Order: sequence, then C-alpha cells, then structure tokens
Amino acid sequence: MAETMKAAVVRAFGQPLAIEEVAVPEPRPGQILVQYMATGVCHTDLHAANGDWPVKPNPPFIPGHEGVGFVAKLGAGVKSVKEGDRVGVPWLHTACGCCSPCRTGWETLCGSQQNTGYSVNGTFAQYGLADPAFVGKLPDNLEFGPAAPILCAGVTVYKGLKETEVRPGEWVVISGIGGLGHLAVQYAKAMGMHVVAADIFDDKLALAKTFGADLTVNGKDADAIAQVQKATGGVHGALVTAVSPKAMEQAYGFLRSKGTMSLVGLPPGFISLPVFDTVLKRITVRGSIVGTRQDLEESLMFAGEGKVASHFSWDRIENINVIFHRMEAGKIDGRIVLDLTT
Amino acid sequence: MAETMKAAVVRAFGQPLAIEEVAVPEPRPGQILVQYMATGVCHTDLHAANGDWPVKPNPPFIPGHEGVGFVAKLGAGVKSVKEGDRVGVPWLHTACGCCSPCRTGWETLCGSQQNTGYSVNGTFAQYGLADPAFVGKLPDNLEFGPAAPILCAGVTVYKGLKETEVRPGEWVVISGIGGLGHLAVQYAKAMGMHVVAADIFDDKLALAKTFGADLTVNGKDADAIAQVQKATGGVHGALVTAVSPKAMEQAYGFLRSKGTMSLVGLPPGFISLPVFDTVLKRITVRGSIVGTRQDLEESLMFAGEGKVASHFSWDRIENINVIFHRMEAGKIDGRIVLDLTT
Amino acid sequence: MAETMKAAVVRAFGQPLAIEEVAVPEPRPGQILVQYMATGVCHTDLHAANGDWPVKPNPPFIPGHEGVGFVAKLGAGVKSVKEGDRVGVPWLHTACGCCSPCRTGWETLCGSQQNTGYSVNGTFAQYGLADPAFVGKLPDNLEFGPAAPILCAGVTVYKGLKETEVRPGEWVVISGIGGLGHLAVQYAKAMGMHVVAADIFDDKLALAKTFGADLTVNGKDADAIAQVQKATGGVHGALVTAVSPKAMEQAYGFLRSKGTMSLVGLPPGFISLPVFDTVLKRITVRGSIVGTRQDLEESLMFAGEGKVASHFSWDRIENINVIFHRMEAGKIDGRIVLDLTT
Amino acid sequence: MAETMKAAVVRAFGQPLAIEEVAVPEPRPGQILVQYMATGVCHTDLHAANGDWPVKPNPPFIPGHEGVGFVAKLGAGVKSVKEGDRVGVPWLHTACGCCSPCRTGWETLCGSQQNTGYSVNGTFAQYGLADPAFVGKLPDNLEFGPAAPILCAGVTVYKGLKETEVRPGEWVVISGIGGLGHLAVQYAKAMGMHVVAADIFDDKLALAKTFGADLTVNGKDADAIAQVQKATGGVHGALVTAVSPKAMEQAYGFLRSKGTMSLVGLPPGFISLPVFDTVLKRITVRGSIVGTRQDLEESLMFAGEGKVASHFSWDRIENINVIFHRMEAGKIDGRIVLDLTT
Repeated sequence: MAETMKAAVVRAFGQPLAIEEVAVPEPRPGQILVQYMATGVCHTDLHAANGDWPVKPNPPFIPGHEGVGFVAKLGAGVKSVKEGDRVGVPWLHTACGCCSPCRTGWETLCGSQQNTGYSVNGTFAQYGLADPAFVGKLPDNLEFGPAAPILCAGVTVYKGLKETEVRPGEWVVISGIGGLGHLAVQYAKAMGMHVVAADIFDDKLALAKTFGADLTVNGKDADAIAQVQKATGGVHGALVTAVSPKAMEQAYGFLRSKGTMSLVGLPPGFISLPVFDTVLKRITVRGSIVGTRQDLEESLMFAGEGKVASHFSWDRIENINVIFHRMEAGKIDGRIVLDLTT
Repeated sequence: MAETMKAAVVRAFGQPLAIEEVAVPEPRPGQILVQYMATGVCHTDLHAANGDWPVKPNPPFIPGHEGVGFVAKLGAGVKSVKEGDRVGVPWLHTACGCCSPCRTGWETLCGSQQNTGYSVNGTFAQYGLADPAFVGKLPDNLEFGPAAPILCAGVTVYKGLKETEVRPGEWVVISGIGGLGHLAVQYAKAMGMHVVAADIFDDKLALAKTFGADLTVNGKDADAIAQVQKATGGVHGALVTAVSPKAMEQAYGFLRSKGTMSLVGLPPGFISLPVFDTVLKRITVRGSIVGTRQDLEESLMFAGEGKVASHFSWDRIENINVIFHRMEAGKIDGRIVLDLTT
Repeated sequence: MAETMKAAVVRAFGQPLAIEEVAVPEPRPGQILVQYMATGVCHTDLHAANGDWPVKPNPPFIPGHEGVGFVAKLGAGVKSVKEGDRVGVPWLHTACGCCSPCRTGWETLCGSQQNTGYSVNGTFAQYGLADPAFVGKLPDNLEFGPAAPILCAGVTVYKGLKETEVRPGEWVVISGIGGLGHLAVQYAKAMGMHVVAADIFDDKLALAKTFGADLTVNGKDADAIAQVQKATGGVHGALVTAVSPKAMEQAYGFLRSKGTMSLVGLPPGFISLPVFDTVLKRITVRGSIVGTRQDLEESLMFAGEGKVASHFSWDRIENINVIFHRMEAGKIDGRIVLDLTT
Repeated sequence: MAETMKAAVVRAFGQPLAIEEVAVPEPRPGQILVQYMATGVCHTDLHAANGDWPVKPNPPFIPGHEGVGFVAKLGAGVKSVKEGDRVGVPWLHTACGCCSPCRTGWETLCGSQQNTGYSVNGTFAQYGLADPAFVGKLPDNLEFGPAAPILCAGVTVYKGLKETEVRPGEWVVISGIGGLGHLAVQYAKAMGMHVVAADIFDDKLALAKTFGADLTVNGKDADAIAQVQKATGGVHGALVTAVSPKAMEQAYGFLRSKGTMSLVGLPPGFISLPVFDTVLKRITVRGSIVGTRQDLEESLMFAGEGKVASHFSWDRIENINVIFHRMEAGKIDGRIVLDLTT
C-alpha cells in the first residue's frame, strides 16, 4: 500500500486549497482506512474551506464528504466490513451511539458527532479514515461516479422528502432543480409521488421533465403560486433545496392546508412565516439535516436499482479551486465528481 | 318557549355592541335550536366585532362561540340529539362533510366551513341555531360555567398540545399563561407531560404552579433560555399561546433537537425562524387551528373528570363592551363567562 | 327517465337470483339516483345471496356494491354532485357522520353504517339510490368497465397495503393473485414498493410478473418461506388476499422482524399465531376492512392515471347465477363486470 | 476489589442452581464491571435455568437480568460512564449497532444481540460485566430495591403500553395483575390513560385499585367482556401480561373497533384470532419484546419520579431454588429482589 497520497488541503480559511502529498493515515482500533476512487464536491466543502459557519474546522484539514472507494485496511477489532468492500463515507463521520438521538435512530442529531471533511479529515484525498459503523455499503451495480453524489446530495433530499410526510399518490413540489433538486425529482417519482418542479431557469425545468416531473413552474412567473394551486389543489409537501428567501416563501405558497415544507439548505438568515395563514391552514415547516445511516442505505438502494441517476461531470482534484469558483458563481450544472484514481 | 331573546349585536365594525331583544330563530331541517345558559368571551369575538381579519363577517350579526346550554328544539330529521341534551356550540359551526379534510378527520380545514359568531350568528344570545353533528355533548358533571371556556380555549390548547407530538414523560413548555395557557398547563399534566410554564408576570407563573407546572420561567429573565435548557435539556415541544413575536422566538429557543413548536394564536405579522438552526436541529414549527369534533369531545372529557378547571369569572351580557375594553387592555385574568339565564 | 328497470333480486337465501323488472326508486331528500352502466361482482355478493354471515340482509333485496354510472336525479337539498356526474357506489353506502370513527376518518367502522347490496339495495340493477357524500367520483379517463372493480376490490387492497405501513423501497408480499391480488400487485408497485407475489398457481404468478412483481414464489414449494427470506431478508409487510389458513400462516412466515401482516379476506374461522415468535420478532397482525371515502378517491386516482388496470371480463346480468357458480368453484380469472346498459 | 464473588450458577438444565464462589471477571476493552447490589428474579431466568426455549444458553452460566449496582471498573476506552455510577443491567446485554434494527432504534430486534443471564453471564452474582452503551443509568432518588424490577418487568410493560398506541384519555386494559401487570397499571396511569385491570383473583384487582385502576373486572365472570364493553365502549388497547390463551382471547374481546392488543408474555403455543371480527373491526395484534435503551431510560424516569413503585420482597441469593419453586407454583406476589450485598 502507498505510504503517501494526494490530497487537497485547507491551510487557511478563504485561501486556495493546496494539492499536497501527505501521509496515508493509519486506522486506530475500530476504524478503517478507505481508498477513495472518487468524491463529490458539495457546497458545504466550500463553506468549510471558507470558515463560513459559527463552529469552524481547524486548518490544516482535508475537506470532502462524498467519498467512495474500497476498504483498504482494518483497524483492530473491526468485523462489520472487510478489505475490498465498496463503501461510501458521508458527512456523518461517527456519533456517540448512546445519547437519546443515537438511541432513537436520529444519530444525525448527536451532540458528539464528528463530521467528515470538517471536524476530521475528509474525502478530497486518495485515502481516509472512517468509522465502519457509519459508512454506506455501495450496491454492486452502482458505479463510483454516480454513487458519490448520493452520499450527501442524494441522502439529503431523500430524507428531506421523507420529512415532508407526503405519501404515494400525493403532490410534492421540489423547489430548486440543481445538484440536490435534480436528484429529489427522481427520488420523489420513485417514491410514488406526483412532482412539481420549480426553478427560475427553463433549462432546469426541462431537465426536471426528463427526470419525470409531472408539472413544472417557473418561479419568476407572477402567477406561479396560482398555477400550482390550480393544477394540484395545493401540494401536500414542499422540499426546498433553493436557498433564497424568496424561493422559500414561494414554496410555502404552493402548499395546501395541512401541507408540510421541509428545508434542507443552510443559508444564513431567516425564513419568515405569516402566522395567520400558518395557523389557519395548519402548515408545518421543518428543517431536515442530511440523513441517518438507514436513510443512506435506502437512498443508495434506489440509486443501485437505477431509479435515481446523478447528473454529474468528472473532474480532477487539481482543479478544486476552479471548481469552488464556479460553484460560488452558480455555474455548476448538476454535480462535480473528482476522479481520485490518478 | 320564548319568542324573543336578549342578544349582543354587532351593528357596525368597531362600534359598541347593542344589547337588543331579537326573535328566537327557527331551526331548519337538520338544525337544532340551543337555549344558551352561558357563553365564554374570546379574543376572536373582539376581532369579529372590529372586523380585524381579511375575511369579515356581515353586520348585523351576533358574535360568540363558546356557548353552552340545552337543546331546545329539533329541526326536521334530527336524530343524533334530543331536547334537553346539554351541549356546547363551538367556533366550527358546520362543515361540508365530503371534502378531503372532512373525510380525514380534519374538518377544521374544510373550505366550506361556517363559523359560529362570525359567518353565522353566535352565542352572545339566549338562543341560537346549531348543527347537531358539530355540537359538543357536555359531560354530566361538568357545570355550564367551567364548560364554556373549554368550547374554544380548552379545545384549542388541547389540540395544540397534541400537535406538538410530545409524549407522556417528555417536556413541553407552555408560553403565555393567560386564558389559554392556564388550561394548557392542566391539559399537559393530565396527558402525562412535564411542564414548563413561561410568562412575563410572576403571578401568572405562580398560578401555573398551582395547576401543576413542574418548572416556571420568567420570559423577561435574560437567561430564560439557558434556564430551561439546563433544567430540561431542551423541551420536546412548545405550545405558544402568547402572541408577541418575542415570545415565539423565545419559545423556539427552549426547544431541544427534533423539538416541535405549535402556534395557536392569531396575531398579524410574521414569525422569523433561523434557517441554519432549524435545519441543523431538525426543528418543526406548526400552526394549529382550534380542534376537531373528536378533539372537542376529548377536551370536554378531561374537564368532566375534573382534571382541567377553567379559571373564570361570571359577568353579564350587558357588560360586553366593558369586557371588550378590558380584553384590549390585557386586564382579564383567565376567562370571562356570561350568564345568559337572566 | 325509465319507470322500471332490470334487476337481479335475492328472493330467498341460497336460491337463484331472479332477474326482474322493478320500479326505479325515487331519491329522498339528501339522496341521489344513479343510473348504473356497469357493476363488478364480488364474493361478498355471493355471501349476501346465501345469507352466510351472522348479520343477514332481508330478502327480497338487490345485491351488488361495485356499481358505476351517471347521477340521474337529485333528491332535495343535494349540492355536492350534479346530474350527469360519473360516480361509483361502494360497499359503504352511508354512515352516521357523528360517531368517533366517522369523526376520525374511519367511517368504515361506523356502527350505524348501511351497506350497498346488503342492508340497502345494491348495484345489480340499472338504477339505484346512493348517498352523495359516499359515492366515488370517477376520473375522467377511467372507463366504466375497469372502474367497477376498483369500487371494492381495488380500494380494499389499496387500503390493506396502506395498513401494512410498508414504505416506498421496502418489500411487501401479496399472497393470493386473484381478483384482489392482481390489483394489489399494481398498487404496491405504484406506491414504490418491492413486491413478492405468492400463489399456488404458476399462471397467476406469471400474471403477477406482467404487473411488475419483482419476485414470485409458489406457495406449494416446500421451501417457499426460505426462498422469500433469502431473497428479501424477510418482507416488511404482507397483504393476504387468500382466505386459506395455510396461506395466512405462510404469509406470516415471510415477514422479517417488525413486519406487519394485513388481512382483507373474510373467511370463517381463525388464524393461529405463534406467541413466542410474534413477541420476539415484534410482529403485527391487523385486519383491514374495505376503505374509507378518502381511500376510495385515492385508489380511483391511481386507476385513472393508468397505474392500475383491472383484469376483468364483461358479462350480462342475466348470467348472474352462472357467475356465482363459477365463483364458488374458484373458476373466475380476475373480475367479472356486468354490462347494465342493455 | 474482591477477587471472588458469590454467584448462582446453572450447572445443568433442570437442576438446582449452585451457589458458588467464583472469580470476579475482568472487563475487556469497551466493557465495564458492575458490582451488583440487587437483582430482580424474572420468569425468564427460570426458563433459562430449565433450558425451556428453542435457543438455549450453555451451562455453566449465571442467570439474571435485572441487576442494579455501581460501576466498579472500566475496560480500556470506556468514557460514557465512570466508576461509582449507579446503573442497571438489562436483558439486552449488547447489540451490533449497525444493522437495520439497531440503526432505527429497535436494537431489541438485532440478530446479533447478546442477552444477560442467557448468552452471557448475568446478574445472580455480586459482580458482572456489561456494555456501557446498554446499561440504564439509575435516577438519583430511585433505590436499588425498587429499581431492579424496572430493568425487565418495568421496561417490558412500559414498552408494551407504548405499542398499544393508546393516547392519554383513552382506555387500556391490563390483563394479568402480577409482577408485570401491577407495574403496568401504574405506568398506564402515569401516561394519562384510563385503566381497566383484569385478573381472576380479587386480591389482585384490589391491589390494582390501590395503584389507580379506574375499573376492575374479574376474568372469571361470565359477562366480563360485556362489563368492560358497557363501561368503556370497548377499550382502545389491551396489554396482556397473562400467559393463558383464555386471558388473551378475553383481552381481545375487551377491544373496541380499531383497538390494539399487545402481547408481552412468552408462553409456548398459539393465539387464535377470529378472522371475520379482526377484519370487520380492524383489530391489531402485536408482539412486544422488552424495551430499547430509550424505553429503559424513560421507564426508569417514571420510577425515579415516584409515579411507579415496584411491589417486591427482599430475599437472599441462597434461596434462589426455593424462589424458583414458588414461581413455578404461581405463589409469588409482585416481584422478588435478591439482596447481593451480603
């Protein structure tokens, strides 16, 4: 096995990442080493590299949390995976296993969780450590490229859809048809929902149509809400992947009585809800944070069965700073996946 | 039976109500006539009389929707109640019975509903019409005085508590210990919850203690949120009866991860939620509107068993305008019930 | 409008039905008259005609409860439908609207319900009365023939599937691929489930495959349970349409821990559950009775969208006794629908 | 620390347990050593000692799974508890933490679980090993004696009550007022339920009254079912702690439509359900197996607050064989707790 590896390292917040040759880490007891073949690039990685959020990582560190590859080495005592297993390493690196959230299938809310590419080194590297109890096992027929974005984008929208509590045959709106939303349309269809796709770009709406959206609406239309209300009687649920306050408010307007809006983006700032309408129509607004291990397994299964396909482009880790610039400019179509094999 | 009756009539929005002698109405087929013994006075009646809300009633009309009394006369075809039955007439006067909300036990969201004291004449009168399928049957040992406030204040907070999804043994905060909140504390205790009472007046908090609150917190304390978080680990649910934006935001702060806040007040304006925290902590915010017929029956049952007792004062219908003034000034302690027998 | 109509009448239990020319009934206030174009024939009709069940209908009466046609006449006061509307009349003829089940969206459990073709005259006739609040509105593009079996067989299995609490992506077994089961396979697929079809006839299993079953198992195979356990890890839910005790016990064996079995058939006799396994594996067994009005609307919607298609044969009302004999002999493939237009 | 300890050891199935002086075990990495102060004696221990169940323990072994005491020593790497902590060691000794049940808060269904006093040595000893992630932390003011029975009897009935899905204000019947049932009555009251206690001994019913039962019924009364149906309209849920088929069938008869029966006992044999009634009344029958770690914490909390008090007698470990004989003869009132301090 190699002793060193290529990695993209954050040396200081807001500075370009350095592509460096660093030591391959050694798994401690209970850990595993994963050889990454590919990793997705997520907006969160950009926030990590910029130190945007209140609780910050400690440079130098390696970002990335959509890593997929092979189990390369087992730390002492590991039995739940074996060398050569195809696995994915998600944002939720590990959690305590004992607290109330952990005990009840909500380890994503564990106060002692570690996060890949944030509080511990991540997947913008050829190797990395993982907790075998928290990796996702990749379905046999799911290739690394399309698998990577499921590790965060996929599971996040899949969970977000579950959190809308929309049942098969009911209507859901997906607001924002980007890296997250284009997967959400597919998950929603696979879950038997009727789907409205909402975006402000017609090409995104056209893409949503190819993924099975039953209805599309351009959020710039003055009567966007009226269109959706007329066609659906108001949607039962809304999944908001867009991060603009305006998109959130519009999504709220698409709801019928007793509808539920679930938010998965992490913009700074606030969402304002009209109290009168929220009460009279018994509206529910809910935040949804990534997904649990169970959600991850389920979201990978849908992808493994070909019901959900990532729209992504291959790129090289050496281009990570360019990719981040394009991301900041909103110029990325679907998802970028880094090829880590070379 | 009398041919005329005393009633408090709104002749024009914002004007004092007129105490008039008007004709006792005649029940049409499927309706009943109720002889009211008492009625509660609710903030909504004040809004109705002032025409405060977007959809307005049509003067002249009789407000009031916490009426209790005896079934006095049956319209043609009525079989589900009989003359002499003790009943209560709530805000939800009738609904279509066929739409999706009506079919699924959510008749409070029916788009064709009629509302007592708003779209149809209400309970500030000695007699009134009702839909027998929508009246509440009063438990035998629940007197009219304490029963009246259950018809709206009681069922509203009972439903709001259910909507927090807090289970027995978990923590709920009741924010605002007034006409609604003092009942909410009692319902929450009867439902096996641990209760934090929050208000900005110490006498209200002392009252809450007598009703069984496990913990009280004065919302004016700078560290109110820290107090609650420390004592409870964060509450599982919050029921906000207070209508100030500040109280709502503070209640949000009391929540633990995966907590649910339910709103039952109808202030104008907006509630602002921090998106980052809402997502990371998977917070749910939900509006809750009065209660269904099933909720009403259940809320009356708790009162009938003595587990919930209204804190109220008797008054006379002739004083309705004074009562409204006191209500506007926030000077009412608990609930006012009008004696309609004289 | 015609004054008389053709109808199949039960004159005495266990006797052949008489095809008679009888008076077209007149809708009372609140009722409607429906001109039936078609009606399905259900096993329950046979039980009704034979007086098989503890609570019996009163001959003479007209059986049938899968009737579809046009609203022909409105009784006084009816507003929720209009003449010419395409509707279906189901087993649940009407219910009280006031009791606890009715208030909570479970009108199928109303103790005062009337049943079409049982306690009131049914759909083996060219006209019949209905409660407009309990008819199903037919989707525009759903023809009468395929619509008829949805009114009972379709809604029953759709509800039964909901009662298994199986979520999209999980496994359900449909036990018995007959008149009910062939619809269940399609509903389950439309709801995003993975489906195992179980039957003892290979042609039924082949049919299930064409409807999208992911896996089939012949219940006669000695290792049928092992096959399903191996392929699926145990199913999350089982819908048992077969009425043999053996099929029920086998379906139980297909379950994984925490699995739910829902029963929709009405055989006499008992189902035996091993207590030890039921407790250790936390198994749930549940009866499911037809479906509510909301379930009916949803089940019709799936059919209207072409996701569920009845496998049926047209026949004539004059052949009803022959049809009943074939039904008793288990010789009917899919469902029989009577053409009532001639 | 002592090097040897007193323990009750099963040397061969069906033989009297031997009271022996054995070595205090040493915690491996990740484990803890607990010094037991007391342990409850459960019917399951008798089954273990007799080798009654299909999957058997391997003699020699130490039974017992209601052990309470102090953390005496930490294995390498343990951080979630510290020496001196007051803990309880339950039936669920440990589980894999990774499988679908473990991931979803159902570790009680883990296929790789170990069970205290069965697959690993148990609590009929002065010391024993435990997994710190699976012990229950004892509330400060809950003494060891009353705490012990909560570890199995308490958590089992608490979970079983949750599994009935009965809400506050609804009716539950507790069938069998013995070691489990007397705790169930108290939990049900603390959870806000209305309680019917059913048993065939009047003294047990009298005991249930002192614990707050709202109604009692002697199962030997010919009209027991009629009594309960008349007084309650049928119960919403039934928790069956009795292990006789007759008690189970009677409990089924107490249910109203849409009622749920949960079974917590482990008798050999079968329960027979009438299919017709189960379907028409939409009855749910469910097995419930002990409780999860979350359930254990909650059940201990209720006891710590004084809402649930075990009815138990102190005894000595040297009497274990006599205790087992009395247990087999049904002569034990409440629960036996062994004092392990001497």
